[in-house]
Amino acid sequence: KGLFYRDTWAEVDLDSIESNVRRIRTLLPEKVDIIAVVKANAYGHGDIKIANAAIRAGATMLAVAFLDEGLSLRRKGVSVPILVLGASRAEDVNVAANENITLTVFQESWIEQAAAVLLPGKELSLHIKVDSGMGRLGVRSEEELQSMEARLKDDPRFRLTGMFTHFATADELDGHYFQKQQARFEKMISVLTTKPACIHTSNSAAALRYPGAYFSAVRLGIAMYGLAPSFEIKPSLPVELTEAFSLHSRLTQVKKLQKGDKVSYGATYEAASDEWIGTMPIGYADGWLRRLQGQEVLINGIRVPIVGRICMDQCMVRLPGEVPVGSAVTLIGKQQEERISIDEIAAKLETINYEVPCLISSRVPRVYKKDGKIVALNNPILKGDCPS
Amino acid sequence: KGLFYRDTWAEVDLDSIESNVRRIRTLLPEKVDIIAVVKANAYGHGDIKIANAAIRAGATMLAVAFLDEGLSLRRKGVSVPILVLGASRAEDVNVAANENITLTVFQESWIEQAAAVLLPGKELSLHIKVDSGMGRLGVRSEEELQSMEARLKDDPRFRLTGMFTHFATADELDGHYFQKQQARFEKMISVLTTKPACIHTSNSAAALRYPGAYFSAVRLGIAMYGLAPSFEIKPSLPVELTEAFSLHSRLTQVKKLQKGDKVSYGATYEAASDEWIGTMPIGYADGWLRRLQGQEVLINGIRVPIVGRICMDQCMVRLPGEVPVGSAVTLIGKQQEERISIDEIAAKLETINYEVPCLISSRVPRVYKKDGKIVALNNPILKGDCPS
Ligand SMILES: Cc1ncc(COP(=O)(O)O)c(CN[C@H](C)C(=O)O)c1O
Ligand SMILES: Cc1ncc(COP(=O)(O)O)c(CN[C@H](C)C(=O)O)c1O
Repeated sequence: KGLFYRDTWAEVDLDSIESNVRRIRTLLPEKVDIIAVVKANAYGHGDIKIANAAIRAGATMLAVAFLDEGLSLRRKGVSVPILVLGASRAEDVNVAANENITLTVFQESWIEQAAAVLLPGKELSLHIKVDSGMGRLGVRSEEELQSMEARLKDDPRFRLTGMFTHFATADELDGHYFQKQQARFEKMISVLTTKPACIHTSNSAAALRYPGAYFSAVRLGIAMYGLAPSFEIKPSLPVELTEAFSLHSRLTQVKKLQKGDKVSYGATYEAASDEWIGTMPIGYADGWLRRLQGQEVLINGIRVPIVGRICMDQCMVRLPGEVPVGSAVTLIGKQQEERISIDEIAAKLETINYEVPCLISSRVPRVYKKDGKIVALNNPILKGDCPS
Repeated sequence: KGLFYRDTWAEVDLDSIESNVRRIRTLLPEKVDIIAVVKANAYGHGDIKIANAAIRAGATMLAVAFLDEGLSLRRKGVSVPILVLGASRAEDVNVAANENITLTVFQESWIEQAAAVLLPGKELSLHIKVDSGMGRLGVRSEEELQSMEARLKDDPRFRLTGMFTHFATADELDGHYFQKQQARFEKMISVLTTKPACIHTSNSAAALRYPGAYFSAVRLGIAMYGLAPSFEIKPSLPVELTEAFSLHSRLTQVKKLQKGDKVSYGATYEAASDEWIGTMPIGYADGWLRRLQGQEVLINGIRVPIVGRICMDQCMVRLPGEVPVGSAVTLIGKQQEERISIDEIAAKLETINYEVPCLISSRVPRVYKKDGKIVALNNPILKGDCPS
């Protein structure tokens, strides 16, 4: 109470994060490390809390999308190795070196630029990214890879600590393209003079399905959050996963409309008879997209539909009868015997589950739970413009 | 440089905000005030910078969706009146009173609850919200309105400073429902013993189209940001509006694919011949939704399509030929003679323009410009968990 002033919040169950990581840990040989993928504010769950939960459960490294995300974690006290998976500007290598953040390199020209600005006495840890068929980031030619290795070995300020690639189809039942990528990656490894210490290829889907692709570590994202990498492989996952994220609100007004009365913008929804309508304070600026019109939410353990257009900060539901103002609404998660999963929301949005928690905006406070009790809260909106 | 480390950012042109407000100001009688609607982080543009620009251009009050947003503005130094448009918990009235933030009331029972907790000697400014047909928040019955007025007058700690309603269809060519709402609101005003000082009904669409609905103030949202309230009325707006928001990135890798090579997850995109593909560091966790696959972006003043699935932090474009790594990409805005408007993105997403900048997440730094020069930058990700 008093830490956020609007009754809309997300809950993140840290026990679920930990148990997901521990369960997956049991599948892996002891010498295979877990890199917890906490980019995009830990898929919307909150970077530092998830990082710490993953580390408690056995992760030994963190991966982020870009340097700012790594710096954010360092400032919040993270001391384990951090790998930036995406591109970084060569001109920023001293920042990475100072904070002991490992960068990803995939172009020879970048190494030249980095060498020109990296201050004497600094050490920069690098992983080489190979594009084995994702067509996104990565070196594709064996010649370039060889000269990158030579160039890095040539300069004592660079430490080539790892090499990796990323799979495009590890979450599909058809394994052909996956195998092609794996073979291509192995060919690329074979052209190196020395294998780097940390070789990794597997995202969640591969970690759960392809023990042959383990190498030294797996990069665990979606499964850590308790979500299946795809609908296709969901029925055949080798471990149980528990969704950590849920989304909640409370009714701010409950009113009886007369037959014919309209609801929301465009007056597109019309009460078919006398109807009880509830208003709740969440809308598309919270990441509860307009396209979720018609989606059901839970009130008193019962599914009720969103009616009328979803507004920027609010939306309306049709209630089975009068319920008190302040009644709890669950938009994602469990209420009594009913449950709305992230997969259900993703299906309604015709997208993948990954996108759903990422979309829930920073305007929605994250409440963290352990043993069913609130242990922390993050409400960015009240942090103000403090110094960076 | 050095204030954000990934080459993806939004630009907000503060001169456009000011000129939009000034142009609309010229349409209004002198005694009609402008309330700048800066809820939802100023529709994604950034609350404090937009608030100050609007005030410079003549706005005298700010409106937000909920109390946290008002507190955020106060902490950033705003001293003009602030109105919370949405519901607030009765138990939080002392916070509002302390910060001189005006709340919205629409239920008699709320007044009782507020009276029970408001400390002696405090003063709370309130606007009554009337539901004249939006079916969202607001008092609907004349009797309840009358007893609310009486109850507020009865207690010296409450100051009834305003009354308002909101239109559902002011942005439609057909004015019937609008007129019905206006008549209903006027009826509601007529049952009051004393008219409050500040009566307001008009959003941007009504402010631009219905001088008869001005009362004491208009609540200006979307038009201030330079966007038309709807496609329907866009051709007939009485003033020119300039879009303030643009979105930018830079290519991080450029590679030649062979015919048959695949791009991104699912390997769904296949190069039809040898093709140049560029990667850029923006994805759905930035609010650049997966549904934008196929959307064009600008590089060297030319439209190029996004190919393959959009990833969490990255997406790929098909280039007309080789272009240098680091080339500027404009996703929203102008490049040379070409322009991609927010309306174009909204159409691709089958949504309204309002939703688009709201979706661009806090991971994307906002760069503020005046006279074509950068005057400020906000990169929330590097603010860390500072005390709230
Ligand atoms: C390089 C890399 N490694 C590992 C992961 C973890 O994947 P998963 O969440 O499936 O375990 C990702 C996530 N990718 C996101 C989803 C993307 O780029 O869209 C990644 O880009
Ligand atoms: C009460 C109220 N007043 C004024 C405005 C400004 O409207 P406009 O941006 O059209 O000028 C809004 C915005 N509404 C948003 C868009 C919503 O609730 O969805 C509002 O809710």
